[in-house]
This record gives sequence, structure tokens and C-alpha cells, in this order.
Amino acid sequence: MIKVVIIGGSGYVGGELLKFLLFHPYVKIIGVTSQSHIGKKISDMHPNLKNVTQLQFQQEDIKKLSKKADVVFLALPAGASMKKIKNINLKKTKVIDLGPDLRLKDASNFEEVYKISHTATDLLKQAVCGIPEIYKEQIKKAQLVACPGCFPTGATLALYPLAKAKLLSKNIIVDSKTGSSGSGIKPTETTHHPERANDFKAYQVFSHRHLPEITQVINDIQGEDIDLIFTPHSAPMVRGIFTTAYIFLKEKISFEKIKKLYLKTYENSPFIRLVDQSRTAVVAGSNYCDIALYVKGNKLIVTSAIDNLVKGAAGQAIQNMNLMFGLPEVTGLQFPGLHP
Amino acid sequence: MIKVVIIGGSGYVGGELLKFLLFHPYVKIIGVTSQSHIGKKISDMHPNLKNVTQLQFQQEDIKKLSKKADVVFLALPAGASMKKIKNINLKKTKVIDLGPDLRLKDASNFEEVYKISHTATDLLKQAVCGIPEIYKEQIKKAQLVACPGCFPTGATLALYPLAKAKLLSKNIIVDSKTGSSGSGIKPTETTHHPERANDFKAYQVFSHRHLPEITQVINDIQGEDIDLIFTPHSAPMVRGIFTTAYIFLKEKISFEKIKKLYLKTYENSPFIRLVDQSRTAVVAGSNYCDIALYVKGNKLIVTSAIDNLVKGAAGQAIQNMNLMFGLPEVTGLQFPGLHP
Amino acid sequence: MIKVVIIGGSGYVGGELLKFLLFHPYVKIIGVTSQSHIGKKISDMHPNLKNVTQLQFQQEDIKKLSKKADVVFLALPAGASMKKIKNINLKKTKVIDLGPDLRLKDASNFEEVYKISHTATDLLKQAVCGIPEIYKEQIKKAQLVACPGCFPTGATLALYPLAKAKLLSKNIIVDSKTGSSGSGIKPTETTHHPERANDFKAYQVFSHRHLPEITQVINDIQGEDIDLIFTPHSAPMVRGIFTTAYIFLKEKISFEKIKKLYLKTYENSPFIRLVDQSRTAVVAGSNYCDIALYVKGNKLIVTSAIDNLVKGAAGQAIQNMNLMFGLPEVTGLQFPGLHP
Amino acid sequence: MIKVVIIGGSGYVGGELLKFLLFHPYVKIIGVTSQSHIGKKISDMHPNLKNVTQLQFQQEDIKKLSKKADVVFLALPAGASMKKIKNINLKKTKVIDLGPDLRLKDASNFEEVYKISHTATDLLKQAVCGIPEIYKEQIKKAQLVACPGCFPTGATLALYPLAKAKLLSKNIIVDSKTGSSGSGIKPTETTHHPERANDFKAYQVFSHRHLPEITQVINDIQGEDIDLIFTPHSAPMVRGIFTTAYIFLKEKISFEKIKKLYLKTYENSPFIRLVDQSRTAVVAGSNYCDIALYVKGNKLIVTSAIDNLVKGAAGQAIQNMNLMFGLPEVTGLQFPGLHP
Repeated sequence: MIKVVIIGGSGYVGGELLKFLLFHPYVKIIGVTSQSHIGKKISDMHPNLKNVTQLQFQQEDIKKLSKKADVVFLALPAGASMKKIKNINLKKTKVIDLGPDLRLKDASNFEEVYKISHTATDLLKQAVCGIPEIYKEQIKKAQLVACPGCFPTGATLALYPLAKAKLLSKNIIVDSKTGSSGSGIKPTETTHHPERANDFKAYQVFSHRHLPEITQVINDIQGEDIDLIFTPHSAPMVRGIFTTAYIFLKEKISFEKIKKLYLKTYENSPFIRLVDQSRTAVVAGSNYCDIALYVKGNKLIVTSAIDNLVKGAAGQAIQNMNLMFGLPEVTGLQFPGLHP
Repeated sequence: MIKVVIIGGSGYVGGELLKFLLFHPYVKIIGVTSQSHIGKKISDMHPNLKNVTQLQFQQEDIKKLSKKADVVFLALPAGASMKKIKNINLKKTKVIDLGPDLRLKDASNFEEVYKISHTATDLLKQAVCGIPEIYKEQIKKAQLVACPGCFPTGATLALYPLAKAKLLSKNIIVDSKTGSSGSGIKPTETTHHPERANDFKAYQVFSHRHLPEITQVINDIQGEDIDLIFTPHSAPMVRGIFTTAYIFLKEKISFEKIKKLYLKTYENSPFIRLVDQSRTAVVAGSNYCDIALYVKGNKLIVTSAIDNLVKGAAGQAIQNMNLMFGLPEVTGLQFPGLHP
Repeated sequence: MIKVVIIGGSGYVGGELLKFLLFHPYVKIIGVTSQSHIGKKISDMHPNLKNVTQLQFQQEDIKKLSKKADVVFLALPAGASMKKIKNINLKKTKVIDLGPDLRLKDASNFEEVYKISHTATDLLKQAVCGIPEIYKEQIKKAQLVACPGCFPTGATLALYPLAKAKLLSKNIIVDSKTGSSGSGIKPTETTHHPERANDFKAYQVFSHRHLPEITQVINDIQGEDIDLIFTPHSAPMVRGIFTTAYIFLKEKISFEKIKKLYLKTYENSPFIRLVDQSRTAVVAGSNYCDIALYVKGNKLIVTSAIDNLVKGAAGQAIQNMNLMFGLPEVTGLQFPGLHP
Repeated sequence: MIKVVIIGGSGYVGGELLKFLLFHPYVKIIGVTSQSHIGKKISDMHPNLKNVTQLQFQQEDIKKLSKKADVVFLALPAGASMKKIKNINLKKTKVIDLGPDLRLKDASNFEEVYKISHTATDLLKQAVCGIPEIYKEQIKKAQLVACPGCFPTGATLALYPLAKAKLLSKNIIVDSKTGSSGSGIKPTETTHHPERANDFKAYQVFSHRHLPEITQVINDIQGEDIDLIFTPHSAPMVRGIFTTAYIFLKEKISFEKIKKLYLKTYENSPFIRLVDQSRTAVVAGSNYCDIALYVKGNKLIVTSAIDNLVKGAAGQAIQNMNLMFGLPEVTGLQFPGLHP
């Protein structure tokens, strides 16, 4: 059994990790922490887990907890992982970080976006980007994986086969739409139900913190700098990220060729499904990413739909864990979406 | 023109008052206050009013403002009105209070429910209950009107004709369902979109603060004490209160007789509509209360649907104002609901 | 392995059966039929199952299919099961019927409600009511189980401990609220998104077809006739039935005693959870029924929350199957709800 | 008083026309038709208008009705207007068509998109495009106005100032998101609540019938052919169209200059509001179009939010009527949105 510790288990991502890991056939959860809920039952924060687990939130003694663990999941806000990870012996214990601290290879990018000084720059090179469909071999050997944000997951999965084939145009547009659970468990003005329920809006246009994460992966794969516009939107739903990506191909390519490229690239990626129409409601609750392709002349539109809390966070993290421990990557993640 | 001042204009009820009063043919708004938004444009808080008004939130100098006003609307949280109203000369300026301070005739009821000492008990007798369909003649002559809460409005309008005819059974059940806008503009856990969007739940069972408001009116009209169970529920919508009232009649009465009773009782009530099926979506945005009747033997079910922010708050307050100034009660309130 | 056939697999209940049974550790699905989709992939109708199964809808040759099956699930509209079941040898193959044909013990009740002549009255006595928490021992030995409707499941689970203790008052009110998936996969006026999305309404007041199902169980357990009012409401959500039941106890009983009664009655019922607040969003996707209790004097309010497609249909049917085949009743059904 | 006839009054657009026109200070409705609801009360189809009007749907005798009318609104499906309009004497009676028949100047475009032979090509030249902000002077003098679709309204209002200043790049992307009411009153699979409520998806990618409407206007204003990609999406809300337009400017222009251009171009357009953030919930129920601008280098993003049934249909049609009859264009349309 893989002994697992979760640091930061009281938020939505923590709850989702628990929901899957409690039923993972090769996992034993040996500790879940939450600084503000020590001693409380996990099901007090995650009522869907009532009677499912009797675990309680423990004090965050990372040094002690991680010594007994095979892997530590960090589900923490920006700036927290880079401090707390220093208490973990990375030679003995694997770490899967779901926060943003170790995602950007260039610390100055992180500092610019998050307005926080980076204090663990030594780890940036070691941290492997946690997108199994793109970096599977590196993840298998990694001790430290930095999972990407929810928007970057949806965007890079939509674009990866084109980048790998060096087909991306210099200019790309990624128009994304997210559900409210991506904002986390803490109530805010933008997630106030009367404001959100019937509303659609764009936000942080040209300035969202996930933009450099997307370009880092895309540039890395294509091998050149792509000028990418990323526009996030708030949609009136709870779960799901829908991405519409616009690519101007250098030359006309037929739909069949593009489809073959995607099928081939993802032939060993069990959670990628090529579909006629991507729908967030169809992937809700699941670890699938449903990709649809539309071609007209040299114009290519790729859409992807994921559940932001699963494939965009907890599910992907567990998929990484499976790879890091030599398990089939689908282990414990096969439950399909909740449609309808 | 009626000179109007709104004290507490930055919340949802304040915004709704403004939306209607800015287009009321006989009203001139001479001041809108908000302690935390002084100097801000009204449309900064109520973006639907952008370009509709250039008004700004003013400092809350009630004494000065009320001297110039014909009527002052108070849209304030519990405990605020009873203090601030002392700055208004009630002989010269009319007051319409949308908060709870002056609703309950017995100050000890208020103190028990709100855990606040009552400091304006002298006004409780003077304050007229602001349900135009029930207390129209008193409202016409009133200087001070205390508008009921949203749940009590929906419940009492459903029950009034029966109470007036002394037909209410000793035991009554009022099962109510509300949209999220009733919780106000401030984000909370229960209005956090990921928690509220797909959820239905009961809350404050046997203990909701609106229960004594309902029984006060019903007992007053029927002339005896009714034992009423009131259960509020949170529904995943923004606007609307739906009330299902269960009455056990003392004897069998036909549907036709009950219907006649309702039609007769409400024959001069332009905002009450007898319908086959009450629907919150049909009254959303309007001042209507749609009532449906179902009879089987001695069992009677009455449903009502209102928009909690309009008929349950701002619309009803303006209807009261119209009566207090001798205007047709529908003035400025005739816009129908937004369906669909 | 239990060899399973599903007759009528293209609707929402069929899809939900498949979603669970495809991952059930002791089940092999040997056939799924749909008269209007023969030859189509199952994932064409249930897109969440794409890549999860390659099964196709087969022709409805029940005689042939059932011969090879250990159990047949019937997910069919009113009037269909009673005809089709005649092609199954009930001595050799077990049947779990999710439709209404075999629920009401008195065929005349069925005929009155559904306006269809009953042609399988011989089976009514044999059919065991498929509520495992109430009829577990009978279900274990049954060859034919008739699963109750979604409303009756939520209502009877809320009331059962009281009925068993003969504590139900003569008059009971059951005020229920359902999500739209209960209406099935076929678009109708009441499930048209613009009409349903922000709406709350009551329907089929005093006349809903599920009323006799509820009273049949309650009367059976309590041993006397209860006069029960059942009012269904449409809520603007997809999954979930919330039930608010009002009981007037013959005498005052403390909350603690009532709670103990429920805990004791359900001590061997792993899917019943006693909670402080029932919430449909918390049980969505799961087989749990979350029950909350509120007592004041002799007034008792019991709320229950279930997912109408799981505990109210497919999940409960599989729970019955587990019992009929000697498996732990939770097998394959342990996935918790999707909250948030 | 302007005597108005509405042909096709039973759908959502018909209902919205009635909601506004019944309160228009200079309008008298002399007839409303619906082929399938002759004799029914209007409020049977539009329950929000109960007690607001006693009008009934009449038979569709256009010749007779139009003779008495000053203006006829046609709210009909594709292919109907071009036949029925022949019964109207356009020299005496003005016509405002809300259907698609007379929008595209080139009949072959219509035929290609709608797969219907065009039988009124003689009227195409005469029909003025009903976007008051763009074609105000022509509308004032028009006898026949063809109102654009809901998507084209949102898109062209976002792009018009740039086209007028010849600033549009050759390649433009319009990524639009619509609420469900745009699909009309008839239930369909894509508007089935269980399918739509939590879903986000793209549809008719590269092939939506509104694309040629958008390019016709944009090309006309800019004076050259723009290569425009238009991608419609279904969002889980009832009202609203949100448009995100991507333009690559020929050269860098500052945000201030772009903002000035928009303010100047729309200085006489009372329903256009320049805002920091466009939000569909803020314009719901109103005739406003809220536009926000974002500039980075030579990249420009323009967002617009409208209510598809008001500014995208009925409201815009009435705004056209006002202009055609010499009234201030805001007459009867000033009610602000329903936010929250």
C-alpha cells in the first residue's frame, strides 16, 4: 500500500483527493492536515464523506508526517508549498504539489504573477510538470511533480498534438470558460450565488496568472515562442472548464489528418477522448478530457472539456501518483462522469 | 413630486427601490445613503443602473436629509432603524421601514428573536404593518409603516382570506422555499455558488425569525391563536419565494367556494392573481403575488409565488408609499415579470 | 459473475444502471436493449460512457436474453413491464423492475392511477417491494423485486422508523421537491430549460401517481391507515429529491429518543446517514439517503435527501440485486456524492 | 397612438414584444396572431401577462389586420415572413421583421443557409438592417426593417466603431455564448433541463446561420471583406449573449484612443454603455448592450453583453419602431436590467 499524506485537506481540491484516494485500491491515507480545522472530522468539511471515513484533520507537522509517508500531496495556496516542502526529505518521500509555487521554471515569472518572493528556486529544475499525457516518462521517474492549474490543463491538452508536430501558428487564441468551484471553498463576491447564477463574464483579460503556465508548456513542446492570448470567463455552473482554441495552420490540412494526429498522439492516454462535441456536463466528476476538432481551410478550432476539480486538479494528481509508483495510470480513477 | 430619501441604498433591497423609484412618475429621489460607499456612484454597486442615474451615495445625515424629504425609506439591518428613526420628525416626514425593528408589536418578541435590546418601543404601536392587501386603510393614514419580511409576505397573502373568514384550522403548516437573493448582497457560505447551485435544503427549522411575524398577522386577522409550523428552505434560484400552506378546514368546503372567497377578498388588490399554478419564474421582477388553490375534502393547500426583492421588499414598500400619498397603488409598479 | 441483462437501457435510469454495473466487481453485462436505438453504441446515448464500454443496444429478444441471464433489470415506462415479464422464466432468472407496473398490490389502484388495464395481476403478490432498508429479508429471498418510485423512496425512508414504532399520527404531510432528471430523457414543456431554470412550482397536487405507493408502504408498516398529503414540487436543479415530512406525534417525545429510534432502526442500513441538515447537493451521484430530525413539542419534522436517479432508482435496484445474490449490499455502490 | 399588429405572438419574442408594447406610451396593440392558439388568451402562453392584458390570439388574416395597422411586427420562423409580407401594403403600413428572411442582401446566401427558396427577392434591397446604432438614418426613413439575429446584434455592436474607422484586421474571431431562451419556446434536446443546466458546449462550429449576417454588416461598414470566425456556444443560463471578439490591429493603439473611438461613435446611442466588465446578468431584461475594451500591444479584445430577447430581438425591434415613427428611440424601453 502507498502511504499517503495530504497537506491542506479542507478545500475543494483536498476533498476531491480524499474522495478518490479513500477508494484507491493501493492507497492508505495516513494523515490529512488543515491548519484551521485541527481535530475536526473530515466529513464536517466534506459532508459527502460522512460515514465514508472517520479520519480527522491533524496538526500540520509535516516533518513527522512525511517521514512515514511514501507520497505527500500539497493542496495549498500560492506561497505555501515552497516553504513547507523544505520539511520533506525528497530523497525518501515523493511530493505532488497542486499549488502554483513550482510550476513556472523561471522564478521571476512566478514573482511577477503572484507578487511573492520565491524561496525554493533550487527545486524548480527538479519539479516535473504533472501532465501525464505530455510528460509521462519524466513523471514516472520523478520525486517531485508540480501539477498545472485547471485552465492550463484544459488548454495544453487541446494544443499538445499540434505543438508536438510543430503545427501551431505563431498566434493562438485560447478562450476558456470555467465553473465556480475553481474559485475554491471561500465565499467571494464573484461566487456569490445571486451574482453568479445567471451571469457570464470575462475576467483578468490579458493578465490571468495561468497564462505563463500555458505558454511554458506549449513553447517547450513546439520548440519556439508562441504568442498566445488567453481569456478566462466565468460561466454559471459549478464544475467544468471548457476551452475553445483557435489556431491558424501554416497550410491547409484535412480534418482526417488532424484527427489522425490527435488519435496517434494520445493513443496511450486513456483519459483523452476524441468526441464530436466536448461538453462539460459529460465529464463532470470524471478524469476525462473530451476533445473535439473542427477544421476549415487553414483554420483549426479545438475544444476541450474537463472537470476542473478532477482532471484539472485532484484526478490528475492521482494519475501522476499512479505513474510515480508504477501503477496503471487509470487506477482508482475510472468512475465515469455524472451525466446528466 | 414626492421627495424621497433612501437610507441604506447599497444592498439588494436598496438597488431594487432605486430601480423602481427612478422611473416612478411622481417621485424625485433627493438622497441615497450608504455608510460604507460615500461618494461612490450608485451604479458602482448597482451596475444595472449605469447611465440610468448619476446619483452618488451620500453621507448618512438623516436629520438634515429627512427635513427635506416627504418620505424616508429605511433599508437597514436589524437594530439600525430603531436608532436612526429618532432623527426623523415623524409628524412632518413619513417613514417606510423595510427592516425588522418595528414589525413585532411586542418588543420582547423582537428581543428574543434578534438578541438586541429594543430602544424604540414607543413607536411599535404607531407602526402600521405594510401589507397593502390586508391593512390598506391603516396604511393610507400612516406616518410610519413597517414592511414585513419576504417569507411573511408570501405566507400571509396565501392565508389572509381564510383568516378573515375565520376558516383557518388551529394547526397550519407553511412550507416555504426561497431564492438566494433573500440572503442579501454579502457573500456567505450558504450563498457560495458551488454550494448553492445544485442544492436544496431546509434551515432554521422551528426557529426562523420570520415565524412570529407570520403568526402576529394571522392571529390578528383570525382573532385567535393559530399554531403554525413554518419551515424555510433554500432553493437553487436567485429570485422568488414559493409558499405551500396546508390547512385542515373545520368542514368540507368546495373548491368553488374557496375560490370565490379569495376572489372576493382580493377584488381590490391589483397585485394578487388567482392562477392555476403559482410559479416563481413567472413573477420574477414583478410586484405580483400568484396564488393557486387546491381542495380535497377538508384539506386545503394554498400556494403563493412572489419575487422576494419586489413584492417581498422594495415593490411592496413602494406600494405602501403610493397609498400613503393618495396615489393608485400600482403607480410605477406595473412592469410584468421577466418570464422566461 | 452475475450475468445481467438491462431491458430499456437508453433512458436516464438505464444509463445510471450501466454506469454502476460496468464497474461492479461481480457483474457481467450480457445484454442491453433499446427498441429505438438497436445497433447504436451505448455511448451514443450516454456520452459519459464513451471508451468505458463498447457495448451496443441490442434487439429486445427478452426470451432469449433472459435465458442466459441471472438477473434482468427492467427500466421501462408504465404498462411495459407487465407484458414483457411474461417472457422471462421467473423460476430461473431473477427480475428487478424499476417501472411502476408491479408496485401497487391492488391492481385497481394501478389502473386508476395509470389508466392502463393490468395484465399481470398474478405477479403482484410475488413482487417484493424493493426498499432494502425496509424489506431486506424478503428481498434476499425474492425472485421478483418491484423498486418504488423516486418520491416514495425519499418519503418512506424518512417515515419508516416512526411507522415501525407505530408513532405516526393519522395525518401526515409530505412536501417533496424534485430535480428535473426525474422527468426522464425526453424533452417536455416542464423540463424546457428557459421554463425550468429559475422556477419553483407545485404540480399534480393531491393527484400524483406516487401517493398510493407511499401510503401502501407506510400503512403496511404501521398497521393502520394513515391519511397522508403528498405534494410534489419542481425545483430548478437536475438531481435530487428533498422531502420534508410533518408528523404530529401522539405525545411529546424528546429529540434524543427520536434520534435513537432512527439510529437503532437503521443500524444495519449502510446508506442511511443521520445528519444535522439534509442536502441534495451532498448526496448527488451517491446511493446515500441523508436524514435530519427536528422536534418541537409533539411536532416532528423529518427531512430526507436522495439522488433520484441513484437511491431513487438505479442505485437502489443494484442494492436489491446485491441482496438477492448474497452480496454485501454496498458492493459497487460506495462512491460518495459529487459535492460540490 | 401607433396602431400595432403582431404576427406570431406566442413565442418568446412575441411575449417580449407584448411585455414592452403593452406599456409603451404611444402604442395601441390592435391585433396579435398565433396560428396554433387562436382564441386563447395571450396570458395562457405568457403567464407573466395575466391581468396585464385581456387580449386574445386572433386568426392570422394579415391583409385585413395590416390595413388597420400603422406597423406590423413579424415574429416568425425562417421562410414565413417572405410569404406573409406580400399581404401587406408596404406603402401604407410599416413592417418590422424579426425573422431571418430579409436580412441577407444576397438571396443565394439565404438559400444556402436555410435550404429554402427565396420568394421575395424584390424586397431585399428595400429592407433596412435594423441595428439603430449603425443604420439610424436609414431606419428613420424605412418602411421595411429586417432586424438582425441575436448573435449578430451582439457581435456587430462590439465591432462597429472599429469597422467604421477601418481598423479591423483581416482576421477576426468572434467567440459567443448564449442562454437557452435563444432556442425558442419549443422544447428540444439541447434545451432539456437535465442536459443544459450544468453544461457548456460549442455548436455549429464554422457553420452557424448567423455568420453571414455578421460579415454582411461588418464588410459593409469597413468597406472590405473581413475573414471572420464565429463560434457559438451554449451556456447554462436563460437570458443573455456574451461576445468575446478578438482583433489584431494593424498597429498599436492605446487603450485611451480605442475608448475615445467607442465613446465618440456611440455618443448618440443611449443603449450602449462602455463598462469595465460586460456581464449578461446586468443587462438581463433590459435593452442595454454593455461593451468592455481590453488592449495589449496590437491585440484588442472587445466584449459585449446583451439580453438576447430584448436588445437581441424585441427591444431592438421596438427601438426601430420608435425611430420609424419619429419618437425618441428610448421610448418604452428604459427599464433597467433585473440584477441580481
